[in-house]
Amino acid sequence: MPIDTACRFVTPSRFGEAAPTSFWRVAPAAAALEASAIREILKVTERPDVLSFAGGAPSPVAFPIEAVRAASDRILRDDPTGALQYGPSEGYLPLREQIAARLTAAGQPTTVANVLVTTGSQQALDLIGKALLAPGVTVLAANPTYVGALQVFALHGTRLAELDDDSAAERAAFAYVTPSFANPTGVSLAAAAQRRLVERLAASNVPLIEDDAYGDLWFDEAPPPGCRAIAPAQVLTLGSFSKVLAPGLRVGYVAGPPPIIALLARLKQGADLHTPSLNQRIVAALIANGTLDAELPRLRSFYKRQRDALLGALDRHLAALADWRVPAGGMFVWLRLKQGRDATALLAEALRRRVAFVPGAPFYFAAADPATLRLSFATVAGERIDEGITGLAAALADAPGA
Amino acid sequence: MPIDTACRFVTPSRFGEAAPTSFWRVAPAAAALEASAIREILKVTERPDVLSFAGGAPSPVAFPIEAVRAASDRILRDDPTGALQYGPSEGYLPLREQIAARLTAAGQPTTVANVLVTTGSQQALDLIGKALLAPGVTVLAANPTYVGALQVFALHGTRLAELDDDSAAERAAFAYVTPSFANPTGVSLAAAAQRRLVERLAASNVPLIEDDAYGDLWFDEAPPPGCRAIAPAQVLTLGSFSKVLAPGLRVGYVAGPPPIIALLARLKQGADLHTPSLNQRIVAALIANGTLDAELPRLRSFYKRQRDALLGALDRHLAALADWRVPAGGMFVWLRLKQGRDATALLAEALRRRVAFVPGAPFYFAAADPATLRLSFATVAGERIDEGITGLAAALADAPGA
Repeated sequence: MPIDTACRFVTPSRFGEAAPTSFWRVAPAAAALEASAIREILKVTERPDVLSFAGGAPSPVAFPIEAVRAASDRILRDDPTGALQYGPSEGYLPLREQIAARLTAAGQPTTVANVLVTTGSQQALDLIGKALLAPGVTVLAANPTYVGALQVFALHGTRLAELDDDSAAERAAFAYVTPSFANPTGVSLAAAAQRRLVERLAASNVPLIEDDAYGDLWFDEAPPPGCRAIAPAQVLTLGSFSKVLAPGLRVGYVAGPPPIIALLARLKQGADLHTPSLNQRIVAALIANGTLDAELPRLRSFYKRQRDALLGALDRHLAALADWRVPAGGMFVWLRLKQGRDATALLAEALRRRVAFVPGAPFYFAAADPATLRLSFATVAGERIDEGITGLAAALADAPGA
Repeated sequence: MPIDTACRFVTPSRFGEAAPTSFWRVAPAAAALEASAIREILKVTERPDVLSFAGGAPSPVAFPIEAVRAASDRILRDDPTGALQYGPSEGYLPLREQIAARLTAAGQPTTVANVLVTTGSQQALDLIGKALLAPGVTVLAANPTYVGALQVFALHGTRLAELDDDSAAERAAFAYVTPSFANPTGVSLAAAAQRRLVERLAASNVPLIEDDAYGDLWFDEAPPPGCRAIAPAQVLTLGSFSKVLAPGLRVGYVAGPPPIIALLARLKQGADLHTPSLNQRIVAALIANGTLDAELPRLRSFYKRQRDALLGALDRHLAALADWRVPAGGMFVWLRLKQGRDATALLAEALRRRVAFVPGAPFYFAAADPATLRLSFATVAGERIDEGITGLAAALADAPGA
């Protein structure tokens, strides 16, 4: 491909005084990439005086701070060279063994050869994009879907089609689903729905990327073991310690067929060589000493109390103005304003009342419903949730279209 | 692009029993990507009984273990939420400020808007590839060059041309150089050579990626301030704390024109959201409390002693059999066997004598010189370097072609 069509010149005006001549020719997909609309909204909503239901972050109240501190201290005493030296791209072997054992116990038979440790599960999406996507290739996904995945698909010039679009399935590189408590909708796939999905995709030889970032945060009963338990040769499962330990450590993983895992490991060499050695050892220590298993029940009750506080406030203040889904786990309630009210217009009014949320629009890759919005129940203190939803109801009364 | 040409089917045989049908269609550039030949060699040479001059890792003897431990402990007491929560894609602001101040002091005027923190400087290469490369685009580089950069270029289907190839310069996306103590050759660009390079590239509107992973490890005098000091609008400088603090933390950075840095930050959102929060704070603490500045003179004398031990042993045992360059910093001696001897054939014989090195061939993207090899003086204990080179000389006497 000649460079003139592959790259477009960035005009000097975009670069201001720092670049008097146009040295930099940006690849078209990169030039078209916009900053995540949600991260931009979060910058506005992170003022300390705002009651924010906008974030996608877990509650810092739940971080096992002392356990991380003790583990880091112990690791840097007992294995400082391991913690500070380069390590294998595939990941720290004891951590891969632990991930394999946990997946196996959860119903997905897994060995070390099935597991690649990644720098958060976002990196697994990036590596999968490099491995399997090319311009014009189709990806099947729920509409709406996680924006971090949409960013990766956009970078590769991918076409997106809805998960149930049979005409697109025949040519798809893969389908992308969140099996449990999806971001943003909170929706889960029951066991029968997982099986139907896997079989329908298998009929077209389409593999499945199963992003299970929230599966551990169930409230009443554990979700089914996931699509990879049904069809291990057809599925890559993504997992993360961000929601159950701490996102700042950036440790996640992808599990699947060994040849695909080996390919992703080669791609990881070029991406960041390996996930930080210290961080992998901290996670391994928190698994080995029982911290993670002790934290999980506490986390589940914490997030369930938070969800119930939000649902109670919605019942009291928004019952006449919106509909919402009751999630069985995770961190989000997906809400739809009645009478075709626009969630983006509402946000400006809500921010004046120091309440924030994320409009649904950025999560859609097709046919957006502008009346939708996402409320996180993770980070607003339980006793202030009612105050926040009261403010949201008042904003709704005052916003354009009321 | 239709999927049938964009992706090729992986045959079931490659996947063994784990994949009875060919679900996985791998993008051609990813399928063609080979594991780094050097990382594969390192797996063979990492046996504890091998005296290995092969690695690219810094000496763990030089890691500031106690300072990292104290910093991690202090951070997790004073700022646990910051250390464990999600953070901005651009990086931890105090660390960006420190990097800007250090670059400014080294002769490259820099503000926070010029700096993106990356998960090692390898990630900076990955992001730059996504931003600026496309299939068929040309990159100019020294032949031989760093294999981690060659991997990134290969993934994008890039054509490589030698740095002094004027016919290729006209259409190049960028030039890639290591200004000081390059891996693998140890070569540096003097100030006048830097200026000539920048001006020659500017004549064709070609920007420059300056990978300065080794610049702090000078032995007798500091290198010149780098090409970015000459032409800030034309140059991205990559830096790393891997060689001067610890590679296992995976903290590096890229500095350059704000619009390019902002583009790379958007690409980083999709790559891993952000570099681990704890690790960025550890590096910031080691800069703030003077650990890094106290370590640097010690590191420089340590590596200089190691270099001198290696040069002495080469003089004693290989003077008749090889030529080599004397590096003024960094971690590597680049050696050329006399009489057209083949370094890859020598490696097998050397490993029998429990001595390892890396043949030069994998570093070349064109016209490889099979007589070359790279010796790292970083990790073999000083008092055993002579023993290792004695073994290498004996292997050379016995190897095919002797």
